[in-house]
Amino acid sequence: MGKDKSSFNLKTPKGTKDWSGSDALLRDRIFSTIADVFKRHGGTALDTPVFELREILAGKYGEDSKLIYDLQDQGGEICSLRYDLTVPFARWLAMNPDVRSIKRYHIAKVYRRDQPAVSKGRMREFYQCDFDIAGTFDAMVPDAEVLRIVSEVFEELGWNGRYTIKLNHRKILDGVFAVCGVPEDKIRPISSAVDKLDKMPWADVRKEMVDDKGLDGAVADRIETYVMHKGGRELLDRLLQDEALNANESAKAGLTDMALMMDYLEAFNVLDKISFDMSLARGLDYYTGVIYEVVTEGSAPAVQSDAPEAQKLQKSAKKDKKASEDDDRSNDPTLGVGSVAAGGRYDNLVGMFLPKAQIPCVGISFGVDRIFSITKARLEREQSAQSLRRSEVDVYVMAIGGKGFNGMLKERMEMCQKLWSAGIKAEFNYKLKPKLQQQFKAAEEGDVPFGLILGESELAEKDGIDIELASLIPALKTRLELKQSSSVASLAQQLQGTQV
Amino acid sequence: MGKDKSSFNLKTPKGTKDWSGSDALLRDRIFSTIADVFKRHGGTALDTPVFELREILAGKYGEDSKLIYDLQDQGGEICSLRYDLTVPFARWLAMNPDVRSIKRYHIAKVYRRDQPAVSKGRMREFYQCDFDIAGTFDAMVPDAEVLRIVSEVFEELGWNGRYTIKLNHRKILDGVFAVCGVPEDKIRPISSAVDKLDKMPWADVRKEMVDDKGLDGAVADRIETYVMHKGGRELLDRLLQDEALNANESAKAGLTDMALMMDYLEAFNVLDKISFDMSLARGLDYYTGVIYEVVTEGSAPAVQSDAPEAQKLQKSAKKDKKASEDDDRSNDPTLGVGSVAAGGRYDNLVGMFLPKAQIPCVGISFGVDRIFSITKARLEREQSAQSLRRSEVDVYVMAIGGKGFNGMLKERMEMCQKLWSAGIKAEFNYKLKPKLQQQFKAAEEGDVPFGLILGESELAEKDGIDIELASLIPALKTRLELKQSSSVASLAQQLQGTQV
Repeated sequence: MGKDKSSFNLKTPKGTKDWSGSDALLRDRIFSTIADVFKRHGGTALDTPVFELREILAGKYGEDSKLIYDLQDQGGEICSLRYDLTVPFARWLAMNPDVRSIKRYHIAKVYRRDQPAVSKGRMREFYQCDFDIAGTFDAMVPDAEVLRIVSEVFEELGWNGRYTIKLNHRKILDGVFAVCGVPEDKIRPISSAVDKLDKMPWADVRKEMVDDKGLDGAVADRIETYVMHKGGRELLDRLLQDEALNANESAKAGLTDMALMMDYLEAFNVLDKISFDMSLARGLDYYTGVIYEVVTEGSAPAVQSDAPEAQKLQKSAKKDKKASEDDDRSNDPTLGVGSVAAGGRYDNLVGMFLPKAQIPCVGISFGVDRIFSITKARLEREQSAQSLRRSEVDVYVMAIGGKGFNGMLKERMEMCQKLWSAGIKAEFNYKLKPKLQQQFKAAEEGDVPFGLILGESELAEKDGIDIELASLIPALKTRLELKQSSSVASLAQQLQGTQV
Repeated sequence: MGKDKSSFNLKTPKGTKDWSGSDALLRDRIFSTIADVFKRHGGTALDTPVFELREILAGKYGEDSKLIYDLQDQGGEICSLRYDLTVPFARWLAMNPDVRSIKRYHIAKVYRRDQPAVSKGRMREFYQCDFDIAGTFDAMVPDAEVLRIVSEVFEELGWNGRYTIKLNHRKILDGVFAVCGVPEDKIRPISSAVDKLDKMPWADVRKEMVDDKGLDGAVADRIETYVMHKGGRELLDRLLQDEALNANESAKAGLTDMALMMDYLEAFNVLDKISFDMSLARGLDYYTGVIYEVVTEGSAPAVQSDAPEAQKLQKSAKKDKKASEDDDRSNDPTLGVGSVAAGGRYDNLVGMFLPKAQIPCVGISFGVDRIFSITKARLEREQSAQSLRRSEVDVYVMAIGGKGFNGMLKERMEMCQKLWSAGIKAEFNYKLKPKLQQQFKAAEEGDVPFGLILGESELAEKDGIDIELASLIPALKTRLELKQSSSVASLAQQLQGTQV
């Protein structure tokens, strides 16, 4: 209660946080790992303002519009903070009608004035990491590349296959509902009920359909015969034999797409990561083709013991069911239990801004906050905590001397200057005459792997290596070479500290 | 006038812009070049929310507070967009009193509801790139390292010594004013007049002092004998002989600091970049020690012919004198004519939040927008425009075939899959049967340096190199190796395109 004398309320706004120390470092590594994959696929960066004219955001998020942060009217334009990165991308495409195709990525914060639950990772300010391909191309080719990107991202993050890409197609789903006899006006609510099959049993979903949404029980039972299935090519082959389904135009188109998709995913060597999941529906209205969601082990039925973080996520997601449902309405990748990325094809969004600039799109959004927690837990489990050090400094330059020692400040400075000029990350103590113990402590606290000790006449009798000045920098560079990769996967293999 | 049928106002808010294409790529290179230097010196990232509680910002920017963007009161806390990165850093230090020393960097957007002048680079949303060292250390050691960082940043950006670091000390300036007889209450306005000596002659500055600010003419004349000087060690030595100055406690302390600074800058090998400039005063009240500002050639008196961008800047800055004066009030690095970075020591700011957590700081802020324009102009002049391509893709995988050619889509996909797996940036055409011409055009438009052509039975008789599949990836990697550096300086030396 007692307010500080300074009368400042010393905190960040509700639902926001500062990122510092090893968390900021790991987060940046995750960003650069993801961005490197995006660039490997020809992605180019797009950066949009943090706020947009309010009319640009209006009518895009349904009842979630109440969660949009508005800027105060201080005279002039009326603006709001962006709610996601997809609508600004669509606005940019509509503003640049000469761009008929692009692979764009965007890593940035978005804003939702939701009830925050910081302990569960639900923030008012959080990062999204989006990659989208816009343009008119032959069917399923860019769609397949997006899923290849998903697998590369998680491999580079060191997840080693511990993830599954759930895949479905809006047209197959629509066809199934039509074939089963769902009335046109009930398709969206029934679709949203089906989407809950990853977190509740069929009996509960059926109850919601029949009791809450007024669906005929027989129709619900027919739906069950389809949506409970998941698998790979064999499921697709079975559906291709289903006469009722193939007689439906929408389902037929979806199945044709899906067959192409499987072929292409095989060429891209990611077919084994795919689960064709007929219950995946996703909340957003604007999807028009394939939809997908990436889950980690633990969110799938068979919980594996080496993925405690996923179990934890699943648990907290259960407690947090209401919030999870809320998220289903949006493009938020935190959608779904344990989901770490999600996306799909949306061919009509750009046309909402400028009908004549209509341009089909397909994309993926990575949920960085959840990826961060899981990656951090893994690194800690693998005792790579040493790699989570606060800074990236490689060499700590120290000095040692006997009685009347002057501290060798300028010598330490000159040594650092040489190291910096050679591109080596180095620090030294800012005191004129630091004690050796102080210098060691600083190097240890910063987990600096190399200590470089300058001696006066006699060199320190530490268990280090005595080295000629001329060969010092090449020797250091060789030792540091193994540490140069900035990918997260390489973090765990970093060198232990050694004294030169 | 005619509004689009869509009824959307298709634009970004006033004073904001989208970054895309080669501009976004170059800007990201500049960011990573600067961040690499920060990390080389032990800098750790700090990321703060884009908005702060309004009371945190209140009372920090004087009459500029009117330029702060406020969020609408939607119930709950009252927040505002950050105005700079320094106040959030000070807030974070006060919130984390266990952190007694840190080197932090922060690259992020800040917001000022100023009258925008987009053509002059004055935006409402713009980037700052800050590095600050907080902690109690021996005098001038971190201060000197900040200037070493300045020189490394501009060298890495390929500016090749074409910049000058103007350096002065608040205590010397205060001492000079006291010795010359400036009344206590006139010190700040007189200081602000002196600061204009980089853009107007002494006669005009004297007139402002005497006519507008009521200073005794004799006092102004004594000031002239000091503030017109700039130089290096020899100027310092002369001042150290000045009995009047050395009798003043403030001046004496400043001169002692400056002597130390010169020694340390020599050890850091940056003394030749320094101009001890007694007219440099800087606007911000909160500076307490050394102050500095980095200018490019062209903003210095001797305009060199190889720096036309600086001349242009000087010209536009003259036209824009009022705006430039406005900027003087703030921490904005666009301060001063042609200035590309600025900063200084501020020992009392953190204490404004929490007196008991007082912690001295010294820092620098790089003006990315101006650095971007100058670097881009240089690259264009050096005809390295090819290095400003939109994406970073290295290989375009194509296919060629005779009559009845099937397009080899899956073969192109499989080849890309192999390249991606080897970490090589690659693209292919999303059409089933693209024409060879289309593929070449796409590769050329993207300035992709390598084309990889898959042939059916007969290989294309292009002037390329015929290569075995097994040796392809090592061969490509060798050719790409020279392009791996992400520093801006290396851009100009990038390979020209070659066909494999």
